[in-house]
Amino acid sequence: MDTFLIAFDLVGTFVFAISGAAVGVRNRLDLFGVLVLSFAAATSGGIARDVLIGATPPVALVNWQYLAVACLAGLITFYRDAAIEKLRNPVQMFDAAGLALFAVSGALKALEFGLGPVSATLLGMLSGIGGGIARDVLVARTPVIFQSDLYAVAALAGAAAVVAGHALALPLAPVVVAGAILCFGLRYMAIRHGWRLPVADHREP
Amino acid sequence: MDTFLIAFDLVGTFVFAISGAAVGVRNRLDLFGVLVLSFAAATSGGIARDVLIGATPPVALVNWQYLAVACLAGLITFYRDAAIEKLRNPVQMFDAAGLALFAVSGALKALEFGLGPVSATLLGMLSGIGGGIARDVLVARTPVIFQSDLYAVAALAGAAAVVAGHALALPLAPVVVAGAILCFGLRYMAIRHGWRLPVADHREP
Amino acid sequence: MDTFLIAFDLVGTFVFAISGAAVGVRNRLDLFGVLVLSFAAATSGGIARDVLIGATPPVALVNWQYLAVACLAGLITFYRDAAIEKLRNPVQMFDAAGLALFAVSGALKALEFGLGPVSATLLGMLSGIGGGIARDVLVARTPVIFQSDLYAVAALAGAAAVVAGHALALPLAPVVVAGAILCFGLRYMAIRHGWRLPVADHREP
Repeated sequence: MDTFLIAFDLVGTFVFAISGAAVGVRNRLDLFGVLVLSFAAATSGGIARDVLIGATPPVALVNWQYLAVACLAGLITFYRDAAIEKLRNPVQMFDAAGLALFAVSGALKALEFGLGPVSATLLGMLSGIGGGIARDVLVARTPVIFQSDLYAVAALAGAAAVVAGHALALPLAPVVVAGAILCFGLRYMAIRHGWRLPVADHREP
Repeated sequence: MDTFLIAFDLVGTFVFAISGAAVGVRNRLDLFGVLVLSFAAATSGGIARDVLIGATPPVALVNWQYLAVACLAGLITFYRDAAIEKLRNPVQMFDAAGLALFAVSGALKALEFGLGPVSATLLGMLSGIGGGIARDVLVARTPVIFQSDLYAVAALAGAAAVVAGHALALPLAPVVVAGAILCFGLRYMAIRHGWRLPVADHREP
Repeated sequence: MDTFLIAFDLVGTFVFAISGAAVGVRNRLDLFGVLVLSFAAATSGGIARDVLIGATPPVALVNWQYLAVACLAGLITFYRDAAIEKLRNPVQMFDAAGLALFAVSGALKALEFGLGPVSATLLGMLSGIGGGIARDVLVARTPVIFQSDLYAVAALAGAAAVVAGHALALPLAPVVVAGAILCFGLRYMAIRHGWRLPVADHREP
């Protein structure tokens, strides 16, 4: 089970790193800038979570596999940019899977560190969306997760499901699976059907 | 006294969350993006302070009231945007009050954790201005606190007054009140009279 | 030796603060905004490193000399902007020296805190480049270190050299000097000869 979780975590790292590298390539960063952005996009959510719960040094810095996987994804994206662009739809699906896993595992880790339900839900969401926020802030654009198809909402829902199951003392495995499916499903449906949250009816005064 | 301080802290959270939500609405974020920005603007200063002094997990994540107050402010701003725009002057006064309280309480907390006078002053200032910096960085603009009417200076002055009073072993309550009045007063006068710091006389070479 | 290291560290702080202040002046920040940006550019790398390894409160907040040196550099740049612009080439050399020192001392500090070779290398690099990233994010532009002349690569090389020497149990002093020379030399050659990393051949689809 643990091996399975680590494998899944590294898959999430891989797809998030691809999203970071793709943004770097589009913003004309050089090769090393692309690799830094890959690593930042893949690990910032987990690093922020670890710093906030006091689990320093963060696992993404201690475990070299995160760096290796992120650099591999960055190199592939850098040298095979056109192929990655064509795969945009599959990548979005992988990204939704990564989001689901990071949200669920982030909430679990916060609960393990003794945080309450509200904090654990917030930290699960942050683990999922933090990488995308860091990626976009580093190229000076408003994070797309603030504007797109239930991205942060899906992460929140997945994390909340895990926290609720934990509070009800349900068995862990089905709770984790349900949380991940809820997050992935919400995001999948939002992409397919263009589900969006309202935008305020703002007029310049 | 403690209840009073918490009440005041939550008022500060409320007005800072309004400023975050107003920026989010103007930048066409969706509802959830607006709520995230409300929470970030209201709590980033305190969260940064807590991480820097090693007080993890940060109180704004542990205490659910911060989240509730920030979301309430975000919802009101989202659905009553026009009304909030009309209230701009009162909101600016509330914001100055929030700044005063966060600067003062931030400096106090740093002193309690055993930090020296320079660090405590800096951390008090950061507690006050951190939320505004996070809000603006997240929508990819230069923080207005770098350019506006003694904003950061007022926070620094309030925090420094508290640290000075603490160093002189003066009684706490009047020192705290004096620091808050100093910060609020400076900011109020700057807004009223357009007080500004100089900008360098830069010519493109 | 320790006095020498501290002196060198403060020289690095000074030149990084100049780079922050120069960016602030160009972006029309007011005097206090320029000082905040000076301090942020000079200390963010070290502060991020200290937070990530759990060494809170960060030394740059505890030791008042960092603040004093950064403010001095900021004041000089603010009032002698034209002179600083003329000194651009010498400043770039100082900046390369600061980068070398921060990368090397950052890696050393991470090793002292018991981190492994990969983490220590990454944290050394982050110590060197973090200030420049914070400076640019705060004025809402893509960090130039992602696009310029081996900046981050030089920091990585310097940090990696120190970590390698440590792993081989070589004597500390020559390893540190070698790491710093490697970083400085790479950066110097890149500036002189316009060495650059490739940029991906991206076409808008």
